[in-house]
Amino acid sequence: MSLITLLTDFGSTDGFSGILKGVIWSICPEAKIADISHEIPPQDIRKGAYTLQRAYPYFPPGTVHLAVVDPGVGTERRPLVARLGDWFFVGPDNGLFTCVYEDAEANLWNMEFIQLTNSRYFLPEVSTSFHGRDIFAPAAAHLARGVSMSELGTVLRDPVRLLLPHPEKTANGWKVHITDCDRFGNLLTDLPAARVKSPATVHVRLGNREIVGIKTSYGTASTGELIALCNSQGLLEIAVVNGSAAQVIDGIPGLIVEVVE
Amino acid sequence: MSLITLLTDFGSTDGFSGILKGVIWSICPEAKIADISHEIPPQDIRKGAYTLQRAYPYFPPGTVHLAVVDPGVGTERRPLVARLGDWFFVGPDNGLFTCVYEDAEANLWNMEFIQLTNSRYFLPEVSTSFHGRDIFAPAAAHLARGVSMSELGTVLRDPVRLLLPHPEKTANGWKVHITDCDRFGNLLTDLPAARVKSPATVHVRLGNREIVGIKTSYGTASTGELIALCNSQGLLEIAVVNGSAAQVIDGIPGLIVEVVE
Amino acid sequence: MSLITLLTDFGSTDGFSGILKGVIWSICPEAKIADISHEIPPQDIRKGAYTLQRAYPYFPPGTVHLAVVDPGVGTERRPLVARLGDWFFVGPDNGLFTCVYEDAEANLWNMEFIQLTNSRYFLPEVSTSFHGRDIFAPAAAHLARGVSMSELGTVLRDPVRLLLPHPEKTANGWKVHITDCDRFGNLLTDLPAARVKSPATVHVRLGNREIVGIKTSYGTASTGELIALCNSQGLLEIAVVNGSAAQVIDGIPGLIVEVVE
Repeated sequence: MSLITLLTDFGSTDGFSGILKGVIWSICPEAKIADISHEIPPQDIRKGAYTLQRAYPYFPPGTVHLAVVDPGVGTERRPLVARLGDWFFVGPDNGLFTCVYEDAEANLWNMEFIQLTNSRYFLPEVSTSFHGRDIFAPAAAHLARGVSMSELGTVLRDPVRLLLPHPEKTANGWKVHITDCDRFGNLLTDLPAARVKSPATVHVRLGNREIVGIKTSYGTASTGELIALCNSQGLLEIAVVNGSAAQVIDGIPGLIVEVVE
Repeated sequence: MSLITLLTDFGSTDGFSGILKGVIWSICPEAKIADISHEIPPQDIRKGAYTLQRAYPYFPPGTVHLAVVDPGVGTERRPLVARLGDWFFVGPDNGLFTCVYEDAEANLWNMEFIQLTNSRYFLPEVSTSFHGRDIFAPAAAHLARGVSMSELGTVLRDPVRLLLPHPEKTANGWKVHITDCDRFGNLLTDLPAARVKSPATVHVRLGNREIVGIKTSYGTASTGELIALCNSQGLLEIAVVNGSAAQVIDGIPGLIVEVVE
Repeated sequence: MSLITLLTDFGSTDGFSGILKGVIWSICPEAKIADISHEIPPQDIRKGAYTLQRAYPYFPPGTVHLAVVDPGVGTERRPLVARLGDWFFVGPDNGLFTCVYEDAEANLWNMEFIQLTNSRYFLPEVSTSFHGRDIFAPAAAHLARGVSMSELGTVLRDPVRLLLPHPEKTANGWKVHITDCDRFGNLLTDLPAARVKSPATVHVRLGNREIVGIKTSYGTASTGELIALCNSQGLLEIAVVNGSAAQVIDGIPGLIVEVVE
């Protein structure tokens, strides 16, 4: 199976994501294509990185993940393909794959990087502002039809990484960061919930609010209650049952959460 | 053909709908997947039910309709698969399929229900907050590749139903409810337009507005005119020609429409 | 390969675009379907025309482009299929394909038009308000499975065209129009950038702003700078580097841009 996913900040109005599909199917007609998101806020590489991290492991081995959030298009910013674990990743070398690099390191996966330099695998004309169409989608499609990574360019050894926050150990717990907010208004943190030693009695402080204990599901609390939860990625999450924590909590982003055991 | 549709309240930003596709294609690589909607307002089971009703009959027999609007995820709320008429339906047993149950009863279709209890067909790890990924998408994919319903769990006899409004007969016509509002601002009612005996002369009253007659198309009235129409589902609809009835009419939702013959 | 694209003003909430896929797969199960956009603003034929123009050439020969922005549905407005260059186009005859007609004339492509009159290829029941479902999607699916255009109806010789702006030559340059604004806030004009003789020194005036020179990429200017650019369609574009020109420039739409050499 040839499977390609798409994650971009192109939006859903202007047809840009459809163009990627046209380019892919012109090169690899048998590819199956899944949209992960086209609603990453414009040029928000970090939100793109977290969103990709949530989704990529659920795709079959060999899937090509094409991701384009690319404020540096047309500059010296390098175009990249990486093989990390069982998957390929194609996009700008601007840190968009940082979370996958961290997963690869944590899991001791092989990591291989190629800079896309072989213009035989670009569209005939390359614009300065739409490399998603002219360079990245063709590379993803050629990979999906079996072209080897090394055909596409030259080895790259120092991929760009975002400086992402990580939970910091404190005397009696953790200093934790809010990394993302989903459409339900749930606030995601960078703390794996499994690191909390006493989930029933832990104190979670954010702003002037304090939550006691980590719930096992939304359903064990009452509607409107502000709760801490182990989310579906295994991370500590702040939520309002059948409501939106983002509407209740002030000072996001940049808010620090204290976890006190 | 293995065909699966998706209807959720996951939104388009966070990648949740893409994850469903990854799970499905990991289990049933040949499945074709159609998005019906991922923009059901968070936890709006009723809007999900009406939206699914509009779409499901247009898919080929055997299609698996996977629907997840699931405020009770992680509670005792049961996971469900139903065979209704020519189609399968997979999702939470919270009333999301009520409109299909009503269609099945009206058309005397067979109705079969199974509670998803066989964890062999779940993902290896089941979270408490994302059963779309861990239980429902796997069930849909296994159905699509030919696993029988009865393999997936045990018989369920009392599926949960929403209490939906229905048109009420009055002395000289109908008391009718607005059930949905589409992106064009058209107001959909629960009255089959065919029940109106005198479409040319009927009076349709809502708020302090009165419309005389049911038009056969938008084009038979002038731009900006408030009209009543038989819509593409055969239901009475209130519309503004090349405009939005929702912007003109106050007091939606909950508004009662009087149809007087 | 049977490939169909979809461009509509149906939005992503109500399930209408999913219905098109159900109809298509009921008729042509092997079709691959790509969404170009469902977020054309309601009834904005012109935005639909420009969006289709950006995308259609990137799809393989034989692709059927199904486009529905259809304020005149249910009136005398004719349903249409056209063969233009290597592609088919199906939708209402209301000017939605005007940009493709202009491309066809500029490139001396063959142009063939058929009015969809053969009701054998419609759904059994045709509503007055959803021809996308009842007439256009079936026609696209039948074309994709190999039915000939001439089977679908009778020759049409005078397709409706929008009156679109075009750049006007002035004594010392061009009077140019803003035709579209994309999700990044970039303002697209109708001037092919190649017509500018002195790109390094040209003056581009809009409102009370003046830009000197056409940049070759976003990256050659600094963040927040208002620039003129040759965009990925080869058109003159007004942009703010890593920002939104639409938020900086007043008086769009209808704004005239002066290009002075």
